[in-house]
Amino acid sequence: MEIKRNINVKELCDKIINGNVNALSRAITLIESNNYSDRAIANKILLNFKKSVNNSIRIGITGVPGVGKSTFIEALGNNLIKIGKKIAILTIDPSSSISKGSILGDKTRMTSLSRSENAFIRPTATSNFQGGVARNTKETIFLCENAGYEIIIIETVGVGQNEISVSEMVDFFLLLKISGAGDQLQGIKRGIIEMSDLIAINKSDGENINNALISKNEFEMALKLFPRKKSNWTPKVLTCSSINNNGIDEIWNTIKNYVKITKKNNFFYRNRIEQNKKWLIQIIDSSLRKSFYEKIKVKNKLEKLIKKIESNKISIFEASQNILSEI
Amino acid sequence: MEIKRNINVKELCDKIINGNVNALSRAITLIESNNYSDRAIANKILLNFKKSVNNSIRIGITGVPGVGKSTFIEALGNNLIKIGKKIAILTIDPSSSISKGSILGDKTRMTSLSRSENAFIRPTATSNFQGGVARNTKETIFLCENAGYEIIIIETVGVGQNEISVSEMVDFFLLLKISGAGDQLQGIKRGIIEMSDLIAINKSDGENINNALISKNEFEMALKLFPRKKSNWTPKVLTCSSINNNGIDEIWNTIKNYVKITKKNNFFYRNRIEQNKKWLIQIIDSSLRKSFYEKIKVKNKLEKLIKKIESNKISIFEASQNILSEI
Repeated sequence: MEIKRNINVKELCDKIINGNVNALSRAITLIESNNYSDRAIANKILLNFKKSVNNSIRIGITGVPGVGKSTFIEALGNNLIKIGKKIAILTIDPSSSISKGSILGDKTRMTSLSRSENAFIRPTATSNFQGGVARNTKETIFLCENAGYEIIIIETVGVGQNEISVSEMVDFFLLLKISGAGDQLQGIKRGIIEMSDLIAINKSDGENINNALISKNEFEMALKLFPRKKSNWTPKVLTCSSINNNGIDEIWNTIKNYVKITKKNNFFYRNRIEQNKKWLIQIIDSSLRKSFYEKIKVKNKLEKLIKKIESNKISIFEASQNILSEI
Repeated sequence: MEIKRNINVKELCDKIINGNVNALSRAITLIESNNYSDRAIANKILLNFKKSVNNSIRIGITGVPGVGKSTFIEALGNNLIKIGKKIAILTIDPSSSISKGSILGDKTRMTSLSRSENAFIRPTATSNFQGGVARNTKETIFLCENAGYEIIIIETVGVGQNEISVSEMVDFFLLLKISGAGDQLQGIKRGIIEMSDLIAINKSDGENINNALISKNEFEMALKLFPRKKSNWTPKVLTCSSINNNGIDEIWNTIKNYVKITKKNNFFYRNRIEQNKKWLIQIIDSSLRKSFYEKIKVKNKLEKLIKKIESNKISIFEASQNILSEI
């Protein structure tokens, strides 16, 4: 799908800086496009913004389906808007490439947030190429920050590989759980618990309150088994009820406290620099591959070599030797 | 660590083909070396063998610690040697980079196999660079096959990312489980069950026999929920006792049956070709990165850019634009 070209990049960027939501949406659509010309415009837009914004807070939120992510984000988001914050919510749902249902779903579920002019809700389109979701999301964060959003929430489903790449683009990682029977079946991997700065036991209301406290205890004990974090932050476990707005402010205070501490010990900034360096290498790597495989000579040679591999006329090592002479 | 250079590649390769175990070991050590000159010799050795061997069977075996992998492999291996097979066992243990204990451990545990001249046991050294284990293992498989080993067993611990890459280098994937209380806590991911061609419930002896049958039933039902495999093979569940040598032959017969069926429907060969093609791309990609980042000009530029990123004087996008002009 190609987006029409008559775009004045400078004008679009000015609009983004001035908080024009349509301009921001349009720029993100260009970022997510697989069309070569769209992508070229997207690059120009990105280059227009000179520096990274360091006064934002990037929060990753994950949890398996049913844990109440949307309701939680709605509760947290509304509290933040009440204290005057502008927030952007980016959702990554691997299922959205199959059915577009969940994309509509996000906005429908976060009803009051989607009506606020201080909240920007946007699903990240899954794209065809490897690492596409990560690239799109990172670039979208960058644009949202330049558009003046102070708090960026990145929501994932917590069952796939996306969490690792999300943890590499946020300042704070929050794992949402519920207590009770199904808990062991929630399928959250040890690695996701390990990367969490806060585990929030959601749906701690009515008859669930006691169970939530038991879960809280269990997680607190489990967390003691993990090695100390580079941030020097001790991960917390809290209970909350999104529907009653209980414990949500405490979670926000914990996040603020984390930011305060890690800015003081400099981890916050060092971490962003490390993330940026990693990201630079990822951009370079994907460009290296692209420019090599798109060469006509490489394409032709590779095609012939693969035919030889298919008929076992050549070993992989001979084939690689042959094609590597084109580097 | 550098290995001494006075190596006659042709002579070494002839020895490998003639079944000289020392020559094979030496070649694998060269493959695993991080030293540039060693690696150059390793490449020459690999190039000396012209074709892939298609009459071998490559079996991936995984299972969490405590499931009895070594005892199982010893039982299976001894049965195979009795019917005249030559087998190579390559073990990948992510912990071996920390302590060398497990490397010694493998040989100690498989006591009778390690004494047989028809069994070759070798741990794959974890190396520093990304994807190193996968590359080393693939190249080692290739050498073992050219050395006349007909059955190649690749053993992993079943808790990390290695299983996916192992499943991409084997013909048959076997998941070892035990029944009973700790079963749900074994931490095997859904993805690993999905890639299995056979789940063997080990330690089905004494009081465990009943529980093993219950587990077998549960897994059979669970497997029905997975989509049909490209191989058209229906994954099996079997029970076995490695210490009593019960059910081990049935497992071998199942593997033989799998090979027969998938050779007939051509999946066996197609799968190896697909694996080879993927492997070729991996070799090219890692060489692309290597040759780019080793350029003096790139090194210098990247160093300066990273300093600018560290002081937030430049955005990632400007930095990438700048360095990509060197491609």
